Amino acid sequence: MKKIIRSEKYLFTPDKNFTRQLKRILGFLPRNFKLYQLAFVHKSASHFFFNDIKVNNERLEFLGDAILDSMVAEYLFQKFPDKEEGFLTQTRSKIVNRDNLNHMAIKLGFGDMIISKMSKDNHKSVYGDALEALIGAIYLDKGYDRAKKIVLERIIQSYININRLLETEIDFKSRIIEWGQKNKKSVNFTSFEEMDEQTNSPVFVTHLIIVDDIVGRGSGNSKKESEQNAARQALQIIEG
Amino acid sequence: MKKIIRSEKYLFTPDKNFTRQLKRILGFLPRNFKLYQLAFVHKSASHFFFNDIKVNNERLEFLGDAILDSMVAEYLFQKFPDKEEGFLTQTRSKIVNRDNLNHMAIKLGFGDMIISKMSKDNHKSVYGDALEALIGAIYLDKGYDRAKKIVLERIIQSYININRLLETEIDFKSRIIEWGQKNKKSVNFTSFEEMDEQTNSPVFVTHLIIVDDIVGRGSGNSKKESEQNAARQALQIIEG
Repeated sequence: MKKIIRSEKYLFTPDKNFTRQLKRILGFLPRNFKLYQLAFVHKSASHFFFNDIKVNNERLEFLGDAILDSMVAEYLFQKFPDKEEGFLTQTRSKIVNRDNLNHMAIKLGFGDMIISKMSKDNHKSVYGDALEALIGAIYLDKGYDRAKKIVLERIIQSYININRLLETEIDFKSRIIEWGQKNKKSVNFTSFEEMDEQTNSPVFVTHLIIVDDIVGRGSGNSKKESEQNAARQALQIIEG
Repeated sequence: MKKIIRSEKYLFTPDKNFTRQLKRILGFLPRNFKLYQLAFVHKSASHFFFNDIKVNNERLEFLGDAILDSMVAEYLFQKFPDKEEGFLTQTRSKIVNRDNLNHMAIKLGFGDMIISKMSKDNHKSVYGDALEALIGAIYLDKGYDRAKKIVLERIIQSYININRLLETEIDFKSRIIEWGQKNKKSVNFTSFEEMDEQTNSPVFVTHLIIVDDIVGRGSGNSKKESEQNAARQALQIIEG
């Protein structure tokens, strides 16, 4: 038996609408409602329950985030036996990036289910956080293998077209440049070629310099790729 | 049945010494030696096998890294039911950081097992990479639950004292300053207080500026904590 999560016991009994929607998402009616209900309590609504104990989905989100990464890692590892690690890493981040998580959660109908004191429209990450927390709850309730099936089949593959995703290239460079314009920061890329001492072959390295602020570093087999990686890293810092 | 990994079939039959050491680490003698053997082939030794196909442990490392993060996440989630997400995240990074992974792999006797053209003494990450790859191999061979037991009991808990780890504070700030001195870069921390709009309470934010190079951003409930987080992020960029 899984241990009880400390904050579960402070939750109210969920209403019928919540139960119906949850069943639609999962494909079954869980007995442990409160565990699932907890996944939908954003930290901004913590104090709805108890002042001295923070009851929210952050712990489940921590767990679900890691579980989701693993499941997608294995999915890609098996689906692409001939692809190298760099491809797998990039493809995973295309799948589980913040925008996609938010998008999936909205499509799954989280809008009515999430309890939040913050506007979900202005803070879309409330959606993605709840999705990760839900994945944590499914894992605790059903174990890894059953959870993997639910997550991959009912969530990821239902809402993400992997093949189309592979064709699209996320243009991190444009996004970081746009960010710079919006925030009145100068964003500079400097690229050069150097030897990778591990493989003994040349690689491009890009330094991304944002004057007096945030910088990312990337590398890759072409100037373009290394620029993309540096831009992605800087975005993680900015948005993270 | 798990799919075959493309590069496995190009490996030689392992010698008796390798087999003996593997059995000592795992507690059992795996039938699928080649999967495990692959975990010990560093990318610098890829071309020992075939020129056109890179046979190395990078794919397994990608998988094992995610699996290890999940296992440690759940371990901490269950072990500390009263701790908040921030504590869980920090504690996990204390456990699975690069230094610890390298240290554990050395203690496990990986020295004789790894095939690498790079000096393991000068590049300790060769050890940690192989450990993550081994965890990927154990997962593919044994499934999540059995792998979790092996990883947590025989690897993590055997070589890491969690309670002692909790007491130690990793001094990221000193490490980044040392790095700056070594690399002749000026490292500057700027801290200020701002309102967290999600929780509506004040937080400290630190910007870490490395002149003309790499920068990290961190936040936390005290100046010290926010500085530590900014330093950790910058280190991830530098060492990542």
